[in-house]
Amino acid sequence: MDNRPIGVFDSGIGGLTVLKEIIEQLPGEDIIYFGDTARIPYGTRSKETVIKYVFQSFRFLLTKNIKAIVIACNTASALAMEEAQKVFQVPIIGVVEPGAKASISATKNNVIGVIGTEGTINSGSYQRKIRKTLPSGEIIGVSCPLFVQIVEEGWENSDVAYLTAQKYLLELKEHNIDTLILGCTHYPALRYTIGKVLGDKVTLINPAYETAKATKVLLKEQNLLSGKSDGGKYNYYVSDDPEKFKRIGGNIIRKEISAVQKINIENL
Amino acid sequence: MDNRPIGVFDSGIGGLTVLKEIIEQLPGEDIIYFGDTARIPYGTRSKETVIKYVFQSFRFLLTKNIKAIVIACNTASALAMEEAQKVFQVPIIGVVEPGAKASISATKNNVIGVIGTEGTINSGSYQRKIRKTLPSGEIIGVSCPLFVQIVEEGWENSDVAYLTAQKYLLELKEHNIDTLILGCTHYPALRYTIGKVLGDKVTLINPAYETAKATKVLLKEQNLLSGKSDGGKYNYYVSDDPEKFKRIGGNIIRKEISAVQKINIENL
Repeated sequence: MDNRPIGVFDSGIGGLTVLKEIIEQLPGEDIIYFGDTARIPYGTRSKETVIKYVFQSFRFLLTKNIKAIVIACNTASALAMEEAQKVFQVPIIGVVEPGAKASISATKNNVIGVIGTEGTINSGSYQRKIRKTLPSGEIIGVSCPLFVQIVEEGWENSDVAYLTAQKYLLELKEHNIDTLILGCTHYPALRYTIGKVLGDKVTLINPAYETAKATKVLLKEQNLLSGKSDGGKYNYYVSDDPEKFKRIGGNIIRKEISAVQKINIENL
Repeated sequence: MDNRPIGVFDSGIGGLTVLKEIIEQLPGEDIIYFGDTARIPYGTRSKETVIKYVFQSFRFLLTKNIKAIVIACNTASALAMEEAQKVFQVPIIGVVEPGAKASISATKNNVIGVIGTEGTINSGSYQRKIRKTLPSGEIIGVSCPLFVQIVEEGWENSDVAYLTAQKYLLELKEHNIDTLILGCTHYPALRYTIGKVLGDKVTLINPAYETAKATKVLLKEQNLLSGKSDGGKYNYYVSDDPEKFKRIGGNIIRKEISAVQKINIENL
Protein backbone atom coordinates (compact mmCIF):
# COMPACT_ATOMS: atom_id res chain seq x y z
CA MET A 1 0.00 0.00 0.00
CA ASP A 2 1.41 3.35 -1.04
CA ASN A 3 -0.47 6.63 -0.74
CA ARG A 4 2.01 8.77 -2.66
CA PRO A 5 0.62 10.35 -5.84
CA ILE A 6 1.10 9.13 -9.42
CA GLY A 7 2.81 11.61 -11.74
CA VAL A 8 1.14 12.04 -15.12
CA PHE A 9 3.06 13.92 -17.77
CA ASP A 10 2.03 15.25 -21.17
CA SER A 11 3.28 17.81 -23.68
CA GLY A 12 0.13 19.80 -22.91
CA ILE A 13 -3.53 19.20 -22.51
CA GLY A 14 -4.17 16.03 -24.56
CA GLY A 15 -2.84 13.82 -21.77
CA LEU A 16 -5.94 14.69 -19.77
CA THR A 17 -7.70 11.99 -21.82
CA VAL A 18 -5.32 9.50 -20.17
CA LEU A 19 -5.83 11.12 -16.77
CA LYS A 20 -9.58 10.76 -17.21
CA GLU A 21 -9.22 7.01 -17.77
CA ILE A 22 -6.89 6.70 -14.76
CA ILE A 23 -9.40 8.54 -12.57
CA GLU A 24 -12.13 6.15 -13.72
CA GLN A 25 -10.10 2.99 -13.25
CA LEU A 26 -8.15 4.09 -10.16
CA PRO A 27 -10.44 6.49 -8.30
CA GLY A 28 -8.47 6.29 -5.04
CA GLU A 29 -5.16 7.52 -6.45
CA ASP A 30 -3.83 11.04 -5.93
CA ILE A 31 -2.36 12.53 -9.09
CA ILE A 32 0.14 15.22 -9.98
CA TYR A 33 -0.33 16.24 -13.62
CA PHE A 34 2.25 18.25 -15.52
CA GLY A 35 1.46 19.66 -18.99
CA ASP A 36 4.36 21.32 -20.81
CA THR A 37 2.06 23.85 -22.46
CA ALA A 38 4.81 26.40 -23.11
CA ARG A 39 6.56 23.99 -25.47
CA ILE A 40 3.71 22.02 -26.98
CA PRO A 41 3.57 20.34 -29.51
CA TYR A 42 6.29 17.71 -29.21
CA GLY A 43 5.12 15.94 -32.37
CA THR A 44 7.33 17.86 -34.81
CA ARG A 45 10.46 18.14 -32.64
CA SER A 46 13.67 16.15 -32.88
CA LYS A 47 14.27 13.14 -30.63
CA GLU A 48 17.07 14.97 -28.83
CA THR A 49 14.82 17.90 -27.95
CA VAL A 50 11.93 15.67 -26.84
CA ILE A 51 14.28 13.71 -24.55
CA LYS A 52 15.53 16.95 -23.02
CA TYR A 53 11.97 18.17 -22.38
CA VAL A 54 10.89 14.81 -20.94
CA PHE A 55 13.84 14.67 -18.57
CA GLN A 56 13.09 18.20 -17.32
CA SER A 57 9.47 17.19 -16.75
CA PHE A 58 10.53 14.05 -14.87
CA ARG A 59 12.86 16.08 -12.65
CA PHE A 60 9.94 18.35 -11.81
CA LEU A 61 7.54 15.46 -11.02
CA LEU A 62 10.16 13.81 -8.83
CA THR A 63 10.15 16.87 -6.55
CA LYS A 64 6.52 15.92 -5.75
CA ASN A 65 7.22 12.59 -4.02
CA ILE A 66 5.49 10.50 -6.69
CA LYS A 67 5.50 6.69 -6.78
CA ALA A 68 5.29 6.19 -10.57
CA ILE A 69 5.15 8.25 -13.76
CA VAL A 70 2.68 7.82 -16.61
CA ILE A 71 3.88 9.37 -19.87
CA ALA A 72 0.49 10.26 -21.35
CA CYS A 73 1.96 11.71 -24.55
CA ASN A 74 2.47 9.38 -27.51
CA THR A 75 5.40 11.34 -28.94
CA ALA A 76 7.19 11.46 -25.59
CA SER A 77 6.55 7.75 -25.00
CA ALA A 78 7.76 6.88 -28.49
CA LEU A 79 10.92 8.99 -28.41
CA ALA A 80 12.02 9.16 -24.78
CA MET A 81 10.59 6.22 -22.80
CA GLU A 82 13.62 3.94 -23.14
CA GLU A 83 16.06 6.75 -22.38
CA ALA A 84 14.04 7.78 -19.32
CA GLN A 85 13.99 4.20 -18.03
CA LYS A 86 17.78 4.12 -18.20
CA VAL A 87 18.17 7.32 -16.19
CA PHE A 88 15.30 7.42 -13.67
CA GLN A 89 14.63 4.80 -10.99
CA VAL A 90 10.87 5.41 -10.72
CA PRO A 91 8.45 2.95 -12.43
CA ILE A 92 7.40 4.42 -15.79
CA ILE A 93 4.35 3.57 -17.91
CA GLY A 94 4.10 4.90 -21.46
CA VAL A 95 1.15 4.79 -23.85
CA VAL A 96 2.93 2.94 -26.66
CA GLU A 97 3.27 -0.52 -25.14
CA PRO A 98 -0.34 -0.83 -23.88
CA GLY A 99 -1.65 0.46 -27.23
CA ALA A 100 0.56 -1.96 -29.18
CA LYS A 101 -0.54 -4.93 -27.03
CA ALA A 102 -4.22 -4.12 -27.49
CA SER A 103 -3.80 -3.94 -31.26
CA ILE A 104 -2.20 -7.40 -31.31
CA SER A 105 -5.13 -8.85 -29.37
CA ALA A 106 -7.61 -7.19 -31.70
CA THR A 107 -6.21 -7.95 -35.15
CA LYS A 108 -7.34 -11.00 -37.07
CA ASN A 109 -5.58 -10.46 -40.39
CA ASN A 110 -2.37 -9.14 -38.79
CA VAL A 111 -2.55 -5.89 -40.74
CA ILE A 112 -2.45 -3.00 -38.27
CA GLY A 113 -2.47 0.75 -38.87
CA VAL A 114 -0.97 3.36 -36.55
CA ILE A 115 -1.67 7.07 -36.82
CA GLY A 116 0.09 9.75 -34.78
CA THR A 117 2.37 12.77 -34.94
CA GLU A 118 5.40 12.92 -37.21
CA GLY A 119 7.62 12.17 -34.20
CA THR A 120 5.63 9.13 -33.10
CA ILE A 121 5.36 7.59 -36.56
CA ASN A 122 8.92 8.29 -37.70
CA SER A 123 10.32 6.87 -34.46
CA GLY A 124 8.91 3.48 -35.49
CA SER A 125 8.17 2.83 -31.84
CA TYR A 126 4.69 1.29 -32.21
CA GLN A 127 5.87 -0.65 -35.22
CA ARG A 128 8.82 -2.19 -33.32
CA LYS A 129 6.73 -3.08 -30.26
CA ILE A 130 4.11 -4.85 -32.40
CA ARG A 131 6.68 -6.74 -34.48
CA LYS A 132 8.29 -8.16 -31.36
CA THR A 133 5.16 -10.21 -30.69
CA LEU A 134 3.88 -10.42 -34.24
CA PRO A 135 6.97 -10.71 -36.45
CA SER A 136 4.96 -11.45 -39.57
CA GLY A 137 2.51 -8.59 -38.99
CA GLU A 138 2.16 -5.81 -41.53
CA ILE A 139 2.16 -2.46 -39.72
CA ILE A 140 1.51 0.77 -41.59
CA GLY A 141 2.20 4.09 -39.89
CA VAL A 142 0.82 7.42 -41.11
CA SER A 143 1.39 10.80 -39.48
CA CYS A 144 -1.67 13.06 -39.43
CA PRO A 145 -0.51 16.52 -38.31
CA LEU A 146 -3.78 18.30 -39.08
CA PHE A 147 -5.88 16.12 -36.78
CA VAL A 148 -4.75 17.81 -33.55
CA GLN A 149 -5.68 21.26 -34.81
CA ILE A 150 -9.01 20.03 -36.16
CA VAL A 151 -9.90 18.67 -32.72
CA GLU A 152 -8.73 21.88 -31.03
CA GLU A 153 -11.00 23.87 -33.36
CA GLY A 154 -13.92 21.63 -32.36
CA TRP A 155 -14.28 20.58 -36.02
CA GLU A 156 -14.05 16.83 -35.44
CA ASN A 157 -17.32 16.04 -37.21
CA SER A 158 -17.01 18.62 -40.01
CA ASP A 159 -16.50 18.23 -43.73
CA VAL A 160 -12.93 19.46 -43.27
CA ALA A 161 -12.31 16.59 -40.82
CA TYR A 162 -13.86 14.07 -43.21
CA LEU A 163 -11.83 15.19 -46.26
CA THR A 164 -8.64 15.32 -44.19
CA ALA A 165 -9.27 11.83 -42.83
CA GLN A 166 -9.91 10.56 -46.36
CA LYS A 167 -6.51 11.88 -47.45
CA TYR A 168 -4.59 10.57 -44.47
CA LEU A 169 -6.29 7.18 -44.23
CA LEU A 170 -6.29 6.26 -47.93
CA GLU A 171 -3.09 4.23 -47.68
CA LEU A 172 -4.41 2.34 -44.62
CA LYS A 173 -7.61 1.48 -46.45
CA GLU A 174 -5.68 0.22 -49.45
CA HIS A 175 -3.70 -2.10 -47.17
CA ASN A 176 -6.92 -3.50 -45.68
CA ILE A 177 -6.01 -2.89 -42.06
CA ASP A 178 -8.48 -4.44 -39.61
CA THR A 179 -7.15 -2.55 -36.55
CA LEU A 180 -6.08 1.07 -36.11
CA ILE A 181 -4.17 2.53 -33.16
CA LEU A 182 -5.19 6.13 -32.46
CA GLY A 183 -1.64 7.01 -31.47
CA CYS A 184 -2.11 10.60 -30.33
CA THR A 185 -4.14 11.73 -27.32
CA HIS A 186 -6.34 14.01 -29.45
CA TYR A 187 -7.38 11.42 -32.01
CA PRO A 188 -10.09 9.53 -30.08
CA ALA A 189 -12.20 12.69 -30.52
CA LEU A 190 -12.16 11.86 -34.26
CA ARG A 191 -13.43 8.27 -33.76
CA TYR A 192 -16.70 8.92 -35.53
CA THR A 193 -15.15 10.57 -38.59
CA ILE A 194 -12.38 7.98 -38.81
CA GLY A 195 -14.99 5.22 -38.52
CA LYS A 196 -16.99 6.77 -41.35
CA VAL A 197 -13.93 6.73 -43.61
CA LEU A 198 -12.65 3.25 -42.70
CA GLY A 199 -15.97 1.47 -42.17
CA ASP A 200 -17.06 -0.44 -39.09
CA LYS A 201 -14.95 -3.53 -39.70
CA VAL A 202 -11.82 -1.73 -38.48
CA THR A 203 -11.28 -1.86 -34.70
CA LEU A 204 -10.08 1.45 -33.26
CA ILE A 205 -7.64 1.18 -30.34
CA ASN A 206 -7.50 3.99 -27.79
CA PRO A 207 -4.14 3.82 -25.98
CA ALA A 208 -5.44 6.12 -23.20
CA TYR A 209 -7.81 3.41 -21.98
CA GLU A 210 -5.19 0.68 -22.31
CA THR A 211 -2.61 2.77 -20.45
CA ALA A 212 -4.88 3.26 -17.45
CA LYS A 213 -5.40 -0.51 -17.36
CA ALA A 214 -1.64 -1.10 -17.53
CA THR A 215 -1.07 1.42 -14.76
CA LYS A 216 -3.45 -0.46 -12.49
CA VAL A 217 -1.68 -3.76 -13.22
CA LEU A 218 1.75 -2.29 -12.56
CA LEU A 219 0.76 -0.63 -9.28
CA LYS A 220 -0.83 -3.86 -8.11
CA GLU A 221 2.19 -5.99 -9.03
CA GLN A 222 4.57 -3.65 -7.24
CA ASN A 223 2.31 -3.19 -4.19
CA LEU A 224 1.94 0.50 -4.96
CA LEU A 225 -1.86 0.85 -4.99
CA SER A 226 -3.21 3.48 -2.62
CA GLY A 227 -5.19 2.50 0.46
CA LYS A 228 -8.21 4.56 -0.65
CA SER A 229 -10.91 3.30 -2.96
CA ASP A 230 -11.99 6.77 -4.02
CA GLY A 231 -11.56 10.48 -3.26
CA GLY A 232 -8.26 10.89 -5.14
CA LYS A 233 -6.81 14.42 -5.16
CA TYR A 234 -5.62 16.07 -8.36
CA ASN A 235 -3.01 18.80 -8.66
CA TYR A 236 -2.10 20.34 -11.99
CA TYR A 237 1.04 22.13 -13.13
CA VAL A 238 1.67 23.77 -16.50
CA SER A 239 4.49 25.74 -18.09
CA ASP A 240 2.27 28.39 -19.75
CA ASP A 241 -0.85 30.34 -18.78
CA PRO A 242 -3.08 28.22 -16.46
CA GLU A 243 -6.34 29.89 -17.57
CA LYS A 244 -6.50 28.29 -21.00
CA PHE A 245 -5.61 24.94 -19.47
CA LYS A 246 -8.40 25.23 -16.91
CA ARG A 247 -10.96 26.10 -19.55
CA ILE A 248 -10.16 23.49 -22.19
CA GLY A 249 -9.01 20.87 -19.67
CA GLY A 250 -12.24 21.02 -17.69
CA ASN A 251 -14.11 20.01 -20.83
CA ILE A 252 -11.88 17.00 -21.37
CA ILE A 253 -12.08 15.48 -17.90
CA ARG A 254 -15.63 16.77 -17.32
CA LYS A 255 -14.64 18.02 -13.88
CA GLU A 256 -13.72 21.50 -12.78
CA ILE A 257 -9.97 22.04 -12.78
CA SER A 258 -9.16 24.51 -10.05
CA ALA A 259 -5.70 23.90 -8.62
CA VAL A 260 -3.40 24.77 -11.54
CA GLN A 261 0.00 26.31 -10.97
CA LYS A 262 2.41 27.66 -13.53
CA ILE A 263 6.00 26.51 -13.13
CA ASN A 264 9.28 27.34 -14.84
CA ILE A 265 10.40 24.11 -16.49
CA GLU A 266 13.33 25.37 -18.56
CA ASN A 267 15.95 25.47 -15.86
CA LEU A 268 15.24 22.04 -14.35
CA MET B 1 27.62 53.11 -43.72
CA ASP B 2 27.54 50.09 -41.46
CA ASN B 3 28.63 46.60 -42.47
CA ARG B 4 27.39 44.80 -39.36
CA PRO B 5 24.69 42.17 -40.04
CA ILE B 6 20.94 42.55 -39.57
CA GLY B 7 19.38 40.12 -37.09
CA VAL B 8 16.20 38.43 -38.31
CA PHE B 9 14.18 36.53 -35.75
CA ASP B 10 11.23 34.16 -36.12
CA SER B 11 9.52 31.49 -34.06
CA GLY B 12 10.72 28.99 -36.66
CA ILE B 13 10.89 28.69 -40.37
CA GLY B 14 8.08 30.96 -41.60
CA GLY B 15 10.21 34.06 -41.13
CA LEU B 16 12.30 32.94 -44.07
CA THR B 17 9.58 34.47 -46.26
CA VAL B 18 10.55 37.82 -44.73
CA LEU B 19 14.24 37.02 -45.11
CA LYS B 20 13.65 36.25 -48.79
CA GLU B 21 12.15 39.71 -49.33
CA ILE B 22 15.00 41.36 -47.43
CA ILE B 23 17.56 39.52 -49.57
CA GLU B 24 15.78 40.75 -52.70
CA GLN B 25 15.43 44.34 -51.58
CA LEU B 26 18.75 44.61 -49.69
CA PRO B 27 21.13 42.21 -51.46
CA GLY B 28 24.24 43.74 -49.90
CA GLU B 29 23.27 43.14 -46.26
CA ASP B 30 24.72 40.34 -44.15
CA ILE B 31 22.08 38.56 -42.08
CA ILE B 32 21.99 36.48 -38.91
CA TYR B 33 18.74 34.51 -38.80
CA PHE B 34 17.48 32.84 -35.64
CA GLY B 35 14.49 30.47 -35.75
CA ASP B 36 13.23 29.23 -32.38
CA THR B 37 12.27 25.83 -33.83
CA ALA B 38 12.37 24.03 -30.46
CA ARG B 39 9.49 26.16 -29.19
CA ILE B 40 7.47 26.86 -32.32
CA PRO B 41 4.57 27.74 -32.64
CA TYR B 42 4.23 31.00 -30.71
CA GLY B 43 0.68 31.56 -32.00
CA THR B 44 -1.12 29.74 -29.19
CA ARG B 45 1.09 30.85 -26.27
CA SER B 46 0.39 33.49 -23.65
CA LYS B 47 1.77 37.01 -24.01
CA GLU B 48 4.06 36.51 -21.01
CA THR B 49 5.64 33.39 -22.53
CA VAL B 50 6.06 34.98 -25.96
CA ILE B 51 7.79 38.00 -24.39
CA LYS B 52 10.15 35.70 -22.51
CA TYR B 53 11.04 33.78 -25.69
CA VAL B 54 11.50 36.98 -27.70
CA PHE B 55 13.81 38.48 -25.08
CA GLN B 56 15.93 35.32 -25.04
CA SER B 57 16.15 35.44 -28.83
CA PHE B 58 17.15 39.11 -28.76
CA ARG B 59 19.87 38.38 -26.21
CA PHE B 60 21.22 35.71 -28.53
CA LEU B 61 21.18 37.95 -31.62
CA LEU B 62 22.89 40.74 -29.70
CA THR B 63 25.90 38.46 -29.14
CA LYS B 64 26.37 38.58 -32.95
CA ASN B 65 27.18 42.29 -33.27
CA ILE B 66 24.03 43.11 -35.23
CA LYS B 67 22.93 46.64 -36.17
CA ALA B 68 19.14 46.11 -36.16
CA ILE B 69 16.59 43.36 -35.51
CA VAL B 70 13.68 42.41 -37.76
CA ILE B 71 10.97 40.46 -35.94
CA ALA B 72 9.72 38.37 -38.85
CA CYS B 73 7.06 36.59 -36.79
CA ASN B 74 3.61 38.16 -36.63
CA THR B 75 2.79 36.76 -33.18
CA ALA B 76 6.08 37.95 -31.70
CA SER B 77 5.65 41.40 -33.30
CA ALA B 78 2.08 41.66 -32.05
CA LEU B 79 2.78 40.54 -28.48
CA ALA B 80 6.33 41.59 -27.70
CA MET B 81 7.43 44.44 -29.98
CA GLU B 82 6.58 47.27 -27.61
CA GLU B 83 8.09 45.50 -24.61
CA ALA B 84 11.27 44.77 -26.56
CA GLN B 85 11.57 48.41 -27.63
CA LYS B 86 11.46 49.45 -23.98
CA VAL B 87 14.24 47.06 -22.97
CA PHE B 88 16.63 46.85 -25.93
CA GLN B 89 18.53 49.78 -27.48
CA VAL B 90 18.88 48.28 -30.96
CA PRO B 91 16.54 49.51 -33.76
CA ILE B 92 13.67 47.03 -34.13
CA ILE B 93 11.35 46.49 -37.10
CA GLY B 94 8.26 44.30 -36.70
CA VAL B 95 5.89 43.01 -39.37
CA VAL B 96 2.72 44.50 -37.87
CA GLU B 97 3.28 48.20 -38.54
CA PRO B 98 4.34 47.84 -42.20
CA GLY B 99 1.42 45.46 -42.84
CA ALA B 100 -1.05 47.81 -41.17
CA LYS B 101 0.22 50.81 -43.15
CA ALA B 102 -0.08 48.99 -46.46
CA SER B 103 -3.66 47.99 -45.69
CA ILE B 104 -4.60 51.61 -45.00
CA SER B 105 -3.16 52.67 -48.37
CA ALA B 106 -5.01 49.88 -50.14
CA THR B 107 -8.52 50.10 -48.69
CA LYS B 108 -11.21 52.16 -50.37
CA ASN B 109 -14.24 51.29 -48.25
CA ASN B 110 -12.27 51.31 -44.96
CA VAL B 111 -13.30 47.74 -44.14
CA ILE B 112 -10.13 45.71 -43.54
CA GLY B 113 -9.74 42.08 -42.57
CA VAL B 114 -6.79 40.61 -40.67
CA ILE B 115 -6.06 36.91 -40.40
CA GLY B 116 -3.37 35.40 -38.19
CA THR B 117 -2.68 33.15 -35.22
CA GLU B 118 -4.78 33.24 -32.07
CA GLY B 119 -2.03 35.27 -30.37
CA THR B 120 -1.81 37.85 -33.15
CA ILE B 121 -5.56 38.35 -33.52
CA ASN B 122 -6.41 38.35 -29.80
CA SER B 123 -3.64 40.87 -29.09
CA GLY B 124 -5.56 43.41 -31.21
CA SER B 125 -2.22 44.70 -32.39
CA TYR B 126 -3.03 45.11 -36.10
CA GLN B 127 -6.44 46.48 -35.19
CA ARG B 128 -4.97 49.20 -32.91
CA LYS B 129 -2.29 50.21 -35.40
CA ILE B 130 -4.85 50.63 -38.18
CA ARG B 131 -7.33 52.55 -36.01
CA LYS B 132 -4.66 55.08 -35.06
CA THR B 133 -4.61 56.33 -38.66
CA LEU B 134 -8.12 55.29 -39.64
CA PRO B 135 -10.28 55.85 -36.52
CA SER B 136 -13.52 55.21 -38.39
CA GLY B 137 -12.25 52.05 -40.10
CA GLU B 138 -13.95 48.74 -39.53
CA ILE B 139 -11.33 46.07 -38.84
CA ILE B 140 -12.28 42.43 -38.49
CA GLY B 141 -9.75 39.95 -37.13
CA VAL B 142 -10.07 36.17 -37.54
CA SER B 143 -7.60 33.57 -36.28
CA CYS B 144 -7.00 30.67 -38.66
CA PRO B 145 -4.99 28.04 -36.76
CA LEU B 146 -5.32 25.31 -39.41
CA PHE B 147 -3.72 27.38 -42.17
CA VAL B 148 -0.14 26.92 -40.94
CA GLN B 149 -0.45 23.15 -40.85
CA ILE B 150 -2.14 23.06 -44.25
CA VAL B 151 0.80 24.95 -45.76
CA GLU B 152 3.30 22.71 -43.97
CA GLU B 153 1.54 19.66 -45.45
CA GLY B 154 1.85 21.22 -48.91
CA TRP B 155 -1.95 21.18 -49.21
CA GLU B 156 -2.38 24.87 -49.98
CA ASN B 157 -4.35 24.30 -53.18
CA SER B 158 -6.36 21.28 -51.98
CA ASP B 159 -10.06 20.84 -51.26
CA VAL B 160 -9.20 20.77 -47.53
CA ALA B 161 -7.60 24.22 -47.89
CA TYR B 162 -10.59 25.55 -49.81
CA LEU B 163 -13.19 24.28 -47.31
CA THR B 164 -11.12 25.53 -44.39
CA ALA B 165 -10.74 28.95 -46.00
CA GLN B 166 -14.50 29.07 -46.62
CA LYS B 167 -15.14 28.48 -42.91
CA TYR B 168 -12.57 30.97 -41.64
CA LEU B 169 -13.27 33.72 -44.16
CA LEU B 170 -17.08 33.65 -44.08
CA GLU B 171 -17.31 36.46 -41.53
CA LEU B 172 -14.89 38.63 -43.53
CA LYS B 173 -16.96 38.12 -46.68
CA GLU B 174 -20.15 39.05 -44.88
CA HIS B 175 -18.53 42.31 -43.75
CA ASN B 176 -17.51 43.12 -47.34
CA ILE B 177 -13.84 43.71 -46.63
CA ASP B 178 -11.93 45.12 -49.60
CA THR B 179 -8.46 44.48 -48.11
CA LEU B 180 -7.05 41.51 -46.21
CA ILE B 181 -3.79 41.38 -44.25
CA LEU B 182 -2.17 37.94 -44.41
CA GLY B 183 -0.92 38.30 -40.84
CA CYS B 184 1.13 35.14 -40.49
CA THR B 185 4.28 34.29 -42.42
CA HIS B 186 2.79 31.05 -43.79
CA TYR B 187 -0.37 32.53 -45.23
CA PRO B 188 0.93 34.06 -48.48
CA ALA B 189 1.29 30.45 -49.68
CA LEU B 190 -2.53 30.31 -49.51
CA ARG B 191 -3.02 33.43 -51.69
CA TYR B 192 -4.61 31.51 -54.52
CA THR B 193 -7.10 29.62 -52.34
CA ILE B 194 -7.96 32.72 -50.31
CA GLY B 195 -8.44 34.66 -53.55
CA LYS B 196 -10.80 31.98 -54.83
CA VAL B 197 -12.93 32.26 -51.68
CA LEU B 198 -12.94 36.07 -51.43
CA GLY B 199 -12.99 36.99 -55.11
CA ASP B 200 -10.54 39.24 -56.92
CA LYS B 201 -11.90 42.53 -55.59
CA VAL B 202 -10.19 41.99 -52.24
CA THR B 203 -6.57 43.20 -52.09
CA LEU B 204 -4.27 40.80 -50.23
CA ILE B 205 -1.49 42.43 -48.18
CA ASN B 206 1.72 40.49 -47.58
CA PRO B 207 3.49 41.99 -44.53
CA ALA B 208 6.75 40.20 -45.45
CA TYR B 209 7.17 42.38 -48.52
CA GLU B 210 6.17 45.55 -46.64
CA THR B 211 8.57 44.75 -43.80
CA ALA B 212 11.54 44.43 -46.11
CA LYS B 213 10.62 47.84 -47.57
CA ALA B 214 10.37 49.34 -44.07
CA THR B 215 13.73 47.82 -43.14
CA LYS B 216 15.37 49.51 -46.09
CA VAL B 217 13.84 52.87 -45.14
CA LEU B 218 14.93 52.59 -41.51
CA LEU B 219 18.51 51.57 -42.35
CA LYS B 220 18.76 54.47 -44.80
CA GLU B 221 17.37 57.01 -42.33
CA GLN B 222 19.74 55.90 -39.60
CA ASN B 223 22.77 55.63 -41.94
CA LEU B 224 22.99 51.91 -41.30
CA LEU B 225 22.99 50.57 -44.88
CA SER B 226 25.94 48.35 -45.73
CA GLY B 227 28.63 49.51 -48.14
CA LYS B 228 28.05 46.51 -50.43
CA SER B 229 25.43 46.41 -53.17
CA ASP B 230 25.30 42.61 -53.26
CA GLY B 231 26.99 39.45 -51.97
CA GLY B 232 25.36 39.49 -48.53
CA LYS B 233 26.30 36.58 -46.25
CA TYR B 234 23.67 34.56 -44.41
CA ASN B 235 24.15 32.64 -41.18
CA TYR B 236 21.36 30.62 -39.62
CA TYR B 237 20.78 29.50 -36.04
CA VAL B 238 17.97 27.30 -34.74
CA SER B 239 17.03 25.82 -31.37
CA ASP B 240 16.09 22.34 -32.70
CA ASP B 241 17.46 19.94 -35.31
CA PRO B 242 19.12 21.89 -38.19
CA GLU B 243 18.41 19.20 -40.82
CA LYS B 244 14.68 19.80 -41.07
CA PHE B 245 15.29 23.55 -41.18
CA LYS B 246 17.78 23.17 -44.02
CA ARG B 247 15.42 21.02 -46.04
CA ILE B 248 12.21 23.03 -45.69
CA GLY B 249 13.96 26.38 -45.47
CA GLY B 250 15.85 25.87 -48.70
CA ASN B 251 12.53 25.54 -50.52
CA ILE B 252 11.26 28.80 -49.07
CA ILE B 253 14.20 31.03 -49.94
CA ARG B 254 15.04 29.02 -53.09
CA LYS B 255 18.68 28.98 -52.11
CA GLU B 256 20.69 26.27 -50.45
CA ILE B 257 20.89 26.76 -46.70
CA SER B 258 24.21 25.36 -45.55
CA ALA B 259 25.48 27.19 -42.48
CA VAL B 260 22.92 26.27 -39.80
CA GLN B 261 23.93 25.88 -36.18
CA LYS B 262 21.87 24.63 -33.29
CA ILE B 263 22.03 26.74 -30.15
CA ASN B 264 20.66 26.40 -26.63
CA ILE B 265 18.25 29.29 -26.23
CA GLU B 266 16.64 28.39 -22.90
CA ASN B 267 19.32 29.65 -20.59
CA LEU B 268 19.86 33.02 -22.25
